[in-house]
Amino acid sequence: MRTRPLKVALLGCGVVGSEVARIMTTHADDLAARIGAPVELAGVAVRRPDRVREGIAPELVTTDATALVKRGDIDVVVEVIGGIEPARTLITTAFEHGASVVSANKALLAQDGAALHAAADEHDKDLYYEAAVAGAIPLIRPLRESLAGDKINRVMGIVNGTTNFILDKMDSTGAGYQEALDEATALGYAEADPTADVEGFDAAAKAAILAGIAFHTRVRLDDVYREGMTEVTAADFASAKEMGCTIKLLAICERAADGASVTARVHPAMIPLSHPLASVRGAYNAVFVESDAAGQLMFYGPGAGGSPTASAVLGDLVAVCRNRIGGATGPGESAYAALPVSPMGDVVTRYHISLDVADKPGVLAQVATVFAEHGVSIDTVRQSGKDGEASLVVVTHRASDAALTGTVEALRKLDTVRGVASIMRVEGE
Amino acid sequence: MRTRPLKVALLGCGVVGSEVARIMTTHADDLAARIGAPVELAGVAVRRPDRVREGIAPELVTTDATALVKRGDIDVVVEVIGGIEPARTLITTAFEHGASVVSANKALLAQDGAALHAAADEHDKDLYYEAAVAGAIPLIRPLRESLAGDKINRVMGIVNGTTNFILDKMDSTGAGYQEALDEATALGYAEADPTADVEGFDAAAKAAILAGIAFHTRVRLDDVYREGMTEVTAADFASAKEMGCTIKLLAICERAADGASVTARVHPAMIPLSHPLASVRGAYNAVFVESDAAGQLMFYGPGAGGSPTASAVLGDLVAVCRNRIGGATGPGESAYAALPVSPMGDVVTRYHISLDVADKPGVLAQVATVFAEHGVSIDTVRQSGKDGEASLVVVTHRASDAALTGTVEALRKLDTVRGVASIMRVEGE
Repeated sequence: MRTRPLKVALLGCGVVGSEVARIMTTHADDLAARIGAPVELAGVAVRRPDRVREGIAPELVTTDATALVKRGDIDVVVEVIGGIEPARTLITTAFEHGASVVSANKALLAQDGAALHAAADEHDKDLYYEAAVAGAIPLIRPLRESLAGDKINRVMGIVNGTTNFILDKMDSTGAGYQEALDEATALGYAEADPTADVEGFDAAAKAAILAGIAFHTRVRLDDVYREGMTEVTAADFASAKEMGCTIKLLAICERAADGASVTARVHPAMIPLSHPLASVRGAYNAVFVESDAAGQLMFYGPGAGGSPTASAVLGDLVAVCRNRIGGATGPGESAYAALPVSPMGDVVTRYHISLDVADKPGVLAQVATVFAEHGVSIDTVRQSGKDGEASLVVVTHRASDAALTGTVEALRKLDTVRGVASIMRVEGE
Repeated sequence: MRTRPLKVALLGCGVVGSEVARIMTTHADDLAARIGAPVELAGVAVRRPDRVREGIAPELVTTDATALVKRGDIDVVVEVIGGIEPARTLITTAFEHGASVVSANKALLAQDGAALHAAADEHDKDLYYEAAVAGAIPLIRPLRESLAGDKINRVMGIVNGTTNFILDKMDSTGAGYQEALDEATALGYAEADPTADVEGFDAAAKAAILAGIAFHTRVRLDDVYREGMTEVTAADFASAKEMGCTIKLLAICERAADGASVTARVHPAMIPLSHPLASVRGAYNAVFVESDAAGQLMFYGPGAGGSPTASAVLGDLVAVCRNRIGGATGPGESAYAALPVSPMGDVVTRYHISLDVADKPGVLAQVATVFAEHGVSIDTVRQSGKDGEASLVVVTHRASDAALTGTVEALRKLDTVRGVASIMRVEGE
């Protein structure tokens, strides 16, 4: 074993960073044996230096992250501060000064992954980020290494634990969105401002990263269609149950049937209870992958939290250190396929639509005509009503989002349609 | 991109080998882009050269596997012939003549993994074998790379599709073992001689490989306790249902509570319906991993079949080719922890025991005394009986296998115990 230690700079020492530092200390011998050289925590950049950090020598702590990554003797920079800046500049500075980088920063990777990979390549350094998607679940490495000889056609996953907790609660207790959100907040599963989670921004960043890796194509955050889950109601869950389904917030990355383009989207959707993703409970994450040769795979585990995220960071740290000792780098960005990313209108799926309609003869015929005019084929219709009010639940066959949108616009113009109560996509069949 | 192609020799051209060759041909451009150089099928060693092999140039086919691996210009040897010999000699010969090796050979890896890794190391070559365990499911790479910074405490999985198909069929239809086996055979899920599957030999080989990687310790096939599932009855499934459980054939690799030793075993066990492994249907495989930092992870997918296995082989092929171009090797054997492998008697778990007893007063007291004398604490007892015959179902708290074995031996000596109808371990709680 090499005796000169590899030097690690830690940027950020919050929930994840402190756990990374703790495991580096308590499991130093194991890490050294697995890497083939000891690893040493050479510096920790923080915003609040006065906070007591158990197990971290005070002289390692600095507020000058830039100076730390510029030291020149750092082998690996671990970035767990999150956000776009200063993380982006610190990472590129790290490459320029000879370090490889392990990051858990989904927002940054989703927005600037291509530029960061280019910077890593320019300096012949590694950029690893297993922790950026689905916490501890090994996903990036399986997609870009284990399935490197396969053709991935679809990645569909629950990649946000907060929203899964809320939806699972609504499903199991019949609670409404607000009530379930309040419980998630009280239990620490949701942040005070839950926007990034419940509006799907967090999941969209992960979808961009996953789509890019799965399809060997650059997919930017802007390419990802995004719809939050704040409008999912107890009534939607009741409808889902009647269909033998539940509702999940899904990130879906798909190759078009002709293979010539891809799409990426985040939205709530009904999935059959028999689908493996349907039974993912609480704050757990799971990602379902479909490929030509491997068939259907699923990866399941905790999607967030200090320890799980630290596990992913440390797995990358071991890999990057091994590469460094071997004088090599791991697989970098693979974007050779450069497939176009199609807009949401091109996505083809099934829909569950609830309409409030007038309870009189001929309404169903009118509604069915509108669907037919827009080329959307109806699978089932269920009518119920009393006292002049009625509801109509339509489940369609597969149709493009554009066709469905056109259908709904036309439906809204019908005198007999009082309102569109909900539109929910149906996936995983 | 490098233009000189990497040369691949394929040993075996059956269900898996022919699929590897097909994908290498049909996806040549993708593989080249992902590797950074074209790969070329340089030779295919087969037993029956006269069989027509679509898409493989006849001049590549040879019956002389030894000459093929000795050619000296081969970059990677893909071994998919299975069995111990000639596979073992061909692999070591391949290393000696400058090739890295990708293998799907679980039996060989379980028996001689250490020697093969040593041969690879001696010649500074790669030995990859993702396909050896759980087919297409990325498992070896996640365990030895993604979780390289974590401490794995338990690996528990359904790693044999044939037996899972049979048990799932028994569970869902109430069929007996023989009836379910007959259906599995008719559908091609079970071989004409199903011994390797139903007696747990196949799963035991995988358990040895998984335990070795998870615990950084050499675990030989002989170290794995093995019990088949041929004696599981419809009555056992009925008992399991009463417990809120189902029955699966599990491969379980565990670190002892004190961390100082490990165990590996294969046997049928009851697991709660709420456990993610309980819902693994048909011939699918799934492996549940518990680690210090990551927590609970699960990997799910098809555990066998030509295409899924080929996917795993090709993922390894891409990795080994990349390593070769980069002049490096991937992670080799990691056995530094060298923990002792404890015998089955040391394994601690819960038990479900069905006894046929005389239906008279005092029997329960006698039985309970025997459990107490052996230090096995009883969780629940259920008595039922009529006409002088009765059954007693005992579920224990956690106890060592040695203590349970002693208890059962003593129970058999009681006049009032007419027979021990079944003993089943209860896992995953």
